[in-house]
Amino acid sequence: MTDRTDVIDVIDLGVGQPDPAILPLARLRAAAAHALAGPGAASLQYGPEQGSPVLRGSLADLLSRHTGTPVEPAELLITAGASHGLDLVVERFAAPGATIFVEDPSYFFAFDVLRSRGARLVPVPTDRDGLDVEALERMLQVEVPAFVYTVPVFHNPTGVTLTGSRRRRLVELAQEYGFLVVADEVYQLLGQPGREPAPLRTFDAERVLSLGSFSKILGPGVRLGWIECTASRLARLVDNGVLRSGGGVSPIASAIVHSAISLGIQDEYLAEIRAVYERRRRHVVRLLDGSLTADFQVMPATGGLYVWLRLPEGLDATGLAAPAEAAGVRFRPGPVFSCAGNFPNYLRICVAPYDESRLTVAVQRLSRVLLRQPSRAGGVR
Amino acid sequence: MTDRTDVIDVIDLGVGQPDPAILPLARLRAAAAHALAGPGAASLQYGPEQGSPVLRGSLADLLSRHTGTPVEPAELLITAGASHGLDLVVERFAAPGATIFVEDPSYFFAFDVLRSRGARLVPVPTDRDGLDVEALERMLQVEVPAFVYTVPVFHNPTGVTLTGSRRRRLVELAQEYGFLVVADEVYQLLGQPGREPAPLRTFDAERVLSLGSFSKILGPGVRLGWIECTASRLARLVDNGVLRSGGGVSPIASAIVHSAISLGIQDEYLAEIRAVYERRRRHVVRLLDGSLTADFQVMPATGGLYVWLRLPEGLDATGLAAPAEAAGVRFRPGPVFSCAGNFPNYLRICVAPYDESRLTVAVQRLSRVLLRQPSRAGGVR
Repeated sequence: MTDRTDVIDVIDLGVGQPDPAILPLARLRAAAAHALAGPGAASLQYGPEQGSPVLRGSLADLLSRHTGTPVEPAELLITAGASHGLDLVVERFAAPGATIFVEDPSYFFAFDVLRSRGARLVPVPTDRDGLDVEALERMLQVEVPAFVYTVPVFHNPTGVTLTGSRRRRLVELAQEYGFLVVADEVYQLLGQPGREPAPLRTFDAERVLSLGSFSKILGPGVRLGWIECTASRLARLVDNGVLRSGGGVSPIASAIVHSAISLGIQDEYLAEIRAVYERRRRHVVRLLDGSLTADFQVMPATGGLYVWLRLPEGLDATGLAAPAEAAGVRFRPGPVFSCAGNFPNYLRICVAPYDESRLTVAVQRLSRVLLRQPSRAGGVR
Repeated sequence: MTDRTDVIDVIDLGVGQPDPAILPLARLRAAAAHALAGPGAASLQYGPEQGSPVLRGSLADLLSRHTGTPVEPAELLITAGASHGLDLVVERFAAPGATIFVEDPSYFFAFDVLRSRGARLVPVPTDRDGLDVEALERMLQVEVPAFVYTVPVFHNPTGVTLTGSRRRRLVELAQEYGFLVVADEVYQLLGQPGREPAPLRTFDAERVLSLGSFSKILGPGVRLGWIECTASRLARLVDNGVLRSGGGVSPIASAIVHSAISLGIQDEYLAEIRAVYERRRRHVVRLLDGSLTADFQVMPATGGLYVWLRLPEGLDATGLAAPAEAAGVRFRPGPVFSCAGNFPNYLRICVAPYDESRLTVAVQRLSRVLLRQPSRAGGVR
């Protein structure tokens, strides 16, 4: 079912996309029927720049319930996904040529978005507790960025979550040195409610802008996300030519997603995929632990869609992509996640697109490729 | 039904939006049911940067049939509307600070989009045949722009259509001086097939990029449009951080609109609204001709959504907005359509949002305001 149609049957653990087999197609058909029923035609008309008012209302309710933190509709701007949100933020809050600090490693497509607005990226080290705030503080004595871009929960690619004490320290530094924090929190709702640290805005609602998305919790094809920030920053973000001309982001998709939330479809689906992804992630980690030697290391994570694997020193993940492909498995080599080209002996696996049986086959293939590398000191066990 | 809920019952002829009462809500409900039925979940997955392949196929067919000019799916890029398309084009084909020639007057929100990418706008005169190509040629001897932005059919705000001979001359100049032409052709399909000049790309498929939109032919809320250009230019346009990260524009809305086209809904609706808008435009022109004095002049147009009215010299359209509002009617004053602030004694009326009975009331209110102005030489008849 989740097989790709490639001739050589490659299992693609490189792409960060959901399993087509579990996308809620029938449920969104019901949501669309509901959305396009009523007497109003708002879903087909131009909408306000800030986005659908009804969606902002139901989204605020969803976020408040799931994060345990009150969220106001007036502090939400509907976007065409987190990357569109990041693009709006960098356009408004970083002049061309401005410095932006990004985690090392980080979400590589964010680099594209930031660089295409002329930003200069500077990497900040991370560890298993997330962004290294002490390293950040040392860097701030040299240069203060327009903002720090961080993925504070179920990090892409490492899977780690920024601890509560580091969250506090990060916003203290933001206050002290005068920079913004852009928190890419697209995986926040995949955590069990109450188990992960509260969203970063809880620590400083003024200096933190949060990026969210329905891509990971409903389906990428709805192409909707949001920015949560103060109303005054939001007013600056909607001062945008494309939003003024065309009105807010997709009223029709917004109406469908609003119906999905108000009909309970989003809550129900979220509970299901939380369990599915958690099972798949644990499955892959267990398989890797069981099949690889002790000189391989899986980054400990508490959730999310990714497994970040450290290979023995001297192994080149980029060079392993071709033999892995030949063996029928694909991954993302570490250096693509670094704006400085670091992490040559790391790779990222996405557990979302396949069920456990396919993931088992994929990890078997990957392990064989990794273990037969001649550059390694130890033998194949 | 088309009454607004404003306390003073203002009829808003300023906004360029369709009549909510005739938006095809039930038909798009059917299209959504069709789109979200099949076994495939492509409408909920990330899609290719160029946009939904099935939509590009059905759109190419629609355009080919209605314009009489073959259109290739490979030359179509799906956008979130014409303004998003313009934003992609200016990002890629005009460096910050570059000069862009725009018609005077022109679509004012386009100015916002162009300026927010750092463009410097230079106005080119127009007349009742559209862009003044002789004036353009003189200007080109001083400076060659990155591109000329033109609305060549049912111009916004003037309603005029660029003649065939001027179309030929425009592309000759583009070839001779080496600039691109960005043709905002969002009203092209509102013309009767075969009656208006062929789209501008017919004259030079290499140098002309065409912007299209479903906003005027289906509903603004679907937030979908397209760019038609050569495959090589298209490859440069999709080299965009937001498109790479999030994939192509709204797969879910694309699936719905594809179904609307393939089920025949788009053709059927297009035939209906062509007739509706044509009737409304003629109605307003007839009313204005009958109620205003000879020193007012309606720009002759062959179609579209707008009526461009020239007031007697000395009348200030911007200053008339407040008394008009008090009298219960709104319009757009001429200077907003000029990047140089020209056209003080012009105003634009949009005929799309209301039926004939409301348009009659609106024109009565407007005429009273215009004719009682003390600065006029003649009396009220």
